[in-house]
Amino acid sequence: VPGIDLSLCVILDREIGHDLTVEQFTRQVISGGATCLQVRLKDASAREMLDFATLVLGVARPLGIPVVVNDRVDVALAAGADGVHVGEEDLPVVWARRLAGPAMVVGASAASVEAARQAQADGADYVGVGPVFRSPTKPNVEPIAPDLIPAIRREISLPIVAIGGITIHNLHVPIRQGADGIAIISALRQCLTPGEVASRLKESICKAKKG
Amino acid sequence: VPGIDLSLCVILDREIGHDLTVEQFTRQVISGGATCLQVRLKDASAREMLDFATLVLGVARPLGIPVVVNDRVDVALAAGADGVHVGEEDLPVVWARRLAGPAMVVGASAASVEAARQAQADGADYVGVGPVFRSPTKPNVEPIAPDLIPAIRREISLPIVAIGGITIHNLHVPIRQGADGIAIISALRQCLTPGEVASRLKESICKAKKG
Repeated sequence: VPGIDLSLCVILDREIGHDLTVEQFTRQVISGGATCLQVRLKDASAREMLDFATLVLGVARPLGIPVVVNDRVDVALAAGADGVHVGEEDLPVVWARRLAGPAMVVGASAASVEAARQAQADGADYVGVGPVFRSPTKPNVEPIAPDLIPAIRREISLPIVAIGGITIHNLHVPIRQGADGIAIISALRQCLTPGEVASRLKESICKAKKG
Repeated sequence: VPGIDLSLCVILDREIGHDLTVEQFTRQVISGGATCLQVRLKDASAREMLDFATLVLGVARPLGIPVVVNDRVDVALAAGADGVHVGEEDLPVVWARRLAGPAMVVGASAASVEAARQAQADGADYVGVGPVFRSPTKPNVEPIAPDLIPAIRREISLPIVAIGGITIHNLHVPIRQGADGIAIISALRQCLTPGEVASRLKESICKAKKG
């Protein structure tokens, strides 16, 4: 998708927390500088996911920020989302692309160079690579090898979004390795001032990109 | 969908049990008289569901028995299934129909006359009504009112599939109330001879329909 800015992808789940509504949280992270949002509700019903995505889209669309739904292509289509992100346990990329059509963003997780190459061949628009660091969201998943992002960078032309355990203190690592952006979940979860945190993350990303 | 026979819908999940492969179980219940199959894997990944549905379709399609996937329209489409069944927590019927297209079977759960009427208006091909009796699969869900099936029968023209706690001993109740068929899960789960059980169920359904 030409022009999609993946610098700061914020993943939204049920635990956005601290008395903020979904709409308030969405508005705040966008005003802080989020460039892309992903709705990821694990173990939620389709109806719950659709309702949540609809709330997020209601805020994000008028502000021009794309919203991607995790895993479910059918929910993404029903919500009128901008795209879908499929992990390795989700539908194959080739099917996500076929069902989503050519206009929708299709992101794919890739845990190896081969998976990244395949995702590109199958029609993905970007790859998510991680966990870069040990993540509180998935504590039992081993981080990727430290040279995986550079290796994928050499192999494919698609944008790379680094994910997993990324904070303001370590985001320069994947960015300097060639990632185009980072995905954030834990660093913003239950955070009192998501707008400010997003804004500091955004600033650090820009700094890291400059070198 | 003209001509779909919903007399004996067998719901397949992971616990089909007793050393039978998915293919063996599928083959046996079809030879016993199952007229329709539903793949329902709760909390499964899309990939697992797709793989499971593909195995079931590999057996059922050459035998002319339709396979419906529970909840996920995207998986149903990717698997090339004959249809999708949406419950009240799943995508709205109108969206299931829009995504599935006109040729696919769309079934919808309905727990009230109003829901059944709405499902028909929104493009469903049949309604699933239940739980008719307390079901071991959903022990905390109260059974429907004893007059719900007759009430729905009077209101809509779609076929009705009765579901929930149905066994060979009680299936005559919903059938005589006007249900076109029954859906079975627990009565076949972990059963040593699913083909024989299916065949006895089928015989009882025919008997109940006759009088």
